[in-house]
Amino acid sequence: MPVLDIPSSDVETYTAFANTLADAAKPLALSYFRTPLDIISKLDESPVTIADRTIEKQMRDMIEARFPTHGIYGEEMGVKKGDEFTWVLDPIDGTKSFITGFPLFGTLISLTYREAPFCGLIDVPATGERWHARPGQTLFAGKPSVTSGCEGFSEARFYTTSPDMFKGSEVEAYEMLSRAARLRRFGGDCYIYGLLASGHCDLVLETGLQPYDYMALVPVVEGAGGCITDWQGKPLSIHSTGQVLASATPTLHEAALKLIA
Amino acid sequence: MPVLDIPSSDVETYTAFANTLADAAKPLALSYFRTPLDIISKLDESPVTIADRTIEKQMRDMIEARFPTHGIYGEEMGVKKGDEFTWVLDPIDGTKSFITGFPLFGTLISLTYREAPFCGLIDVPATGERWHARPGQTLFAGKPSVTSGCEGFSEARFYTTSPDMFKGSEVEAYEMLSRAARLRRFGGDCYIYGLLASGHCDLVLETGLQPYDYMALVPVVEGAGGCITDWQGKPLSIHSTGQVLASATPTLHEAALKLIA
Repeated sequence: MPVLDIPSSDVETYTAFANTLADAAKPLALSYFRTPLDIISKLDESPVTIADRTIEKQMRDMIEARFPTHGIYGEEMGVKKGDEFTWVLDPIDGTKSFITGFPLFGTLISLTYREAPFCGLIDVPATGERWHARPGQTLFAGKPSVTSGCEGFSEARFYTTSPDMFKGSEVEAYEMLSRAARLRRFGGDCYIYGLLASGHCDLVLETGLQPYDYMALVPVVEGAGGCITDWQGKPLSIHSTGQVLASATPTLHEAALKLIA
Repeated sequence: MPVLDIPSSDVETYTAFANTLADAAKPLALSYFRTPLDIISKLDESPVTIADRTIEKQMRDMIEARFPTHGIYGEEMGVKKGDEFTWVLDPIDGTKSFITGFPLFGTLISLTYREAPFCGLIDVPATGERWHARPGQTLFAGKPSVTSGCEGFSEARFYTTSPDMFKGSEVEAYEMLSRAARLRRFGGDCYIYGLLASGHCDLVLETGLQPYDYMALVPVVEGAGGCITDWQGKPLSIHSTGQVLASATPTLHEAALKLIA
């Protein structure tokens, strides 16, 4: 990771503020999760659509009040141009989980400096879990989060949200990598990157992701000692293709990149 | 469901005791979940193997002390023959979830009378959730759990733990049904039957299950108004093939059975 030329006290401030945003988002998300059917039938829109927009509006208002010069890139309300800092927001990552009562959806928050994400946060409102990262350190439940150290496919635990995300030639890459691993599992959206950061799985391969889906994952995975890039090994940015590979170690990452090339 | 010829006060007693078993299992399961790597390397066996056996031993001891004439059928320690009542136990359902830190594994407990399950319980230690059922009623968080009422594929939310469980001609049945549904999702093991009982998903199709994987699900799904049978529409028993279909309503179940026939 390139050296960050902003004062560490500012990094502290931004990291604390990202947590404040997540604290504000959490009760909103939970208030729409598992909404009873008799309430849904009275709504013009689905609960997840309303939750998405309500949470993003809340976070944008807080950012604009505190850091009015910063840019904002949100899933629901698009881009607000700003200075060298941009907040990238996904109010509800895991829409299909959300609408099926599956508790592993998350709120994703990241802050980029000159387009590189350096603070990232995965909050999981329904389980009360949160991974949050600053450069070089990811915390979970108040303790440093560290990847597994797995270096070989024969020990690797592979995750992806759904086999249905892979299209055309991507299917072969997915099959190759997931079959090389010790086991493959499905489901989880952002949650599985948290599992990787905590050493519980070793490889995640996905595609079709938007910048607000993956920008927050970068500091979380890297701060725990893992690697996360596009499928060509290039750093993820808002200009990436949406193909994402995350690995527990650089050795495993290199091998995985070679296998899917 | 056939009328149960045992006194309702006995049903109360058994249901309460199933909850007592789950209360005893929960801290044991959590003590082995997400075991740090430095502890794993010192163990001769995997944490899930130890957890499975420790929990089953605990539950068997409690059953033998309280109901010494009852039979027991557990995943780890096999069958103990008894009278007309048999406890069917799966200490950790979702082994692959457990070993990858995925929190949606469960402890399954059911009580059969003349081979028909009439009390069932899905406990999810890591999220603190529990579905428990007696004949005609499933409870979740102290309230009756009710399926969605979904009757048509166009609205149905489909779940299965993994596409990898289907073999040979089963693949076609799985593809037909899951593609007919509004959306298909993966992951969850016993948890997705709880979601169905609570109205959050509408169809679950699985195969390769053992009696201790599905017996507890029967009262939970039926007590919430849903249907659960094998793929031919026959009631599930310890002699079933391991193919399981669960649906939110009888109408949807009939249509699903026809589609996969």
